[in-house]
Amino acid sequence: MKTYLDCISCFFRQGLDAARMTTEDEKIQKKILDEIAMIVPKFPLNSTPPEMGRIIHKIVCKFTNSSDPYKKVKDKYNKEALKFYPELKKKTREAKDPLLVAIKIAIAGNVIDFGVNEVKNKIDIEKELKNTLKQDSAIFDYDKLKNFLEKTEEILYLGDNAGEIVFDRILIEELQKKVIYVVREKPIINDVTIEDALFAGIDKIAKVISSGCDAPGTILRYCSKEFLNHYYKAELIISKGQGNYETLSEEKRPIFFLLKAKCPIIAKDLGCRVRDIILKTQSLK
Amino acid sequence: MKTYLDCISCFFRQGLDAARMTTEDEKIQKKILDEIAMIVPKFPLNSTPPEMGRIIHKIVCKFTNSSDPYKKVKDKYNKEALKFYPELKKKTREAKDPLLVAIKIAIAGNVIDFGVNEVKNKIDIEKELKNTLKQDSAIFDYDKLKNFLEKTEEILYLGDNAGEIVFDRILIEELQKKVIYVVREKPIINDVTIEDALFAGIDKIAKVISSGCDAPGTILRYCSKEFLNHYYKAELIISKGQGNYETLSEEKRPIFFLLKAKCPIIAKDLGCRVRDIILKTQSLK
Repeated sequence: MKTYLDCISCFFRQGLDAARMTTEDEKIQKKILDEIAMIVPKFPLNSTPPEMGRIIHKIVCKFTNSSDPYKKVKDKYNKEALKFYPELKKKTREAKDPLLVAIKIAIAGNVIDFGVNEVKNKIDIEKELKNTLKQDSAIFDYDKLKNFLEKTEEILYLGDNAGEIVFDRILIEELQKKVIYVVREKPIINDVTIEDALFAGIDKIAKVISSGCDAPGTILRYCSKEFLNHYYKAELIISKGQGNYETLSEEKRPIFFLLKAKCPIIAKDLGCRVRDIILKTQSLK
Repeated sequence: MKTYLDCISCFFRQGLDAARMTTEDEKIQKKILDEIAMIVPKFPLNSTPPEMGRIIHKIVCKFTNSSDPYKKVKDKYNKEALKFYPELKKKTREAKDPLLVAIKIAIAGNVIDFGVNEVKNKIDIEKELKNTLKQDSAIFDYDKLKNFLEKTEEILYLGDNAGEIVFDRILIEELQKKVIYVVREKPIINDVTIEDALFAGIDKIAKVISSGCDAPGTILRYCSKEFLNHYYKAELIISKGQGNYETLSEEKRPIFFLLKAKCPIIAKDLGCRVRDIILKTQSLK
């Protein structure tokens, strides 16, 4: 997905939000916004929004001497999400269609996204879960996914956010396949890194690798050879969240995007409404 | 009110909205946002948001060769608001406290503000009126206003937006005083100019003058001598809307601000919640 003009105002919101998490000094916060402003005229719109997300993060880190502004928020939501694990496990096991419930749980977790939400707005995970489980969707390629699962032994699973990763675990366990779980190379917004995968116990049920990319998405030209090797041979890729969708939506690979559409721009791009839950694959040859 | 860091992202939203109203050319729209981006690092935060609103408007006009991007929208809402006039007149006349109802009507009209709203979001005037008339408010200096009215023969009334001006007329008629109604010097967003005052028939019930200022607010250093003369001798000033509040909130004059708080930043500045209706005067010596 290209960067829409509407994304530009959001870059400043995102930058300010990250700045406020690391410093209370208004002058530094303003400097960060000024630096983003100086990048905007040079930023080509055919780049994807996570390209700018990556730049913003570097600016914030540079001016605040922080390498991980969202560390506390990530820890908080990891811990909070983990509390739901036993209940969700039970819910999945008792369901008529456990895979469908596990998919919806994984999508519900995608609401824990501070690229879109402001950190000050507390996310009500319980309410989100309840709503998502009973929510229908206009874009839900569930039968296609089941067809792919029948023919596939190994799944490349692109993780998205801390907290959300606990809900990914429910789905991975339900898939009953060999899974390679992919995290970001370095901390970026509240995206998953290796530490989050270890915290959520993903290493016990999947092989965990880094994409090599330090953007809040999967920008292939920044990815490691190891990741690309898996990516190009994968017969089934599950891609979580907006950032991965934004960076891979035009790829011709067997990708199933699982996400909650959280902003009007991505909803427009997907052809759905804000807050819709999405399981979407592109038409493959 | 100073410019908060949160206002910066909103400048880009406002610029894009105005750009889209005048051209469908994405390249020109991007140029407008780039130009705003180049201004941001030079823009001092102790300026008020309408200072930037003024700059954005000039940028939009320059790149689109338009002098009045909101002309159509202004005409549309003027006409729509006028349809409500007979019904509102009746409602006021039949009310137990006609002045109170007229004030609430004038505040309800303040929702027709495209500095805050995106033009694509249609404003439901009828619903807004209904809700405002039964709405209570934490900041409502009605008794103080009545005290001032008892001692005052002439009121300086600072208008805000097209459409809204019809609702101002209801209040002006109810005040039963000599009123000087102030419009902006030139078209800026959907703010009132002399044409709107004539359309709404304000000239039949008040003296209409221009502030001399071409910002979406009342920035005193841009105002005309004629206006300043009225301003400094006025015993009672009614100031409509966010732009006038943002530019005059720190003034020590007998001003009563009538507005609907439409963004979280102004709500924070006022100490109220978004969507609250406000009738506020500052503590005067």
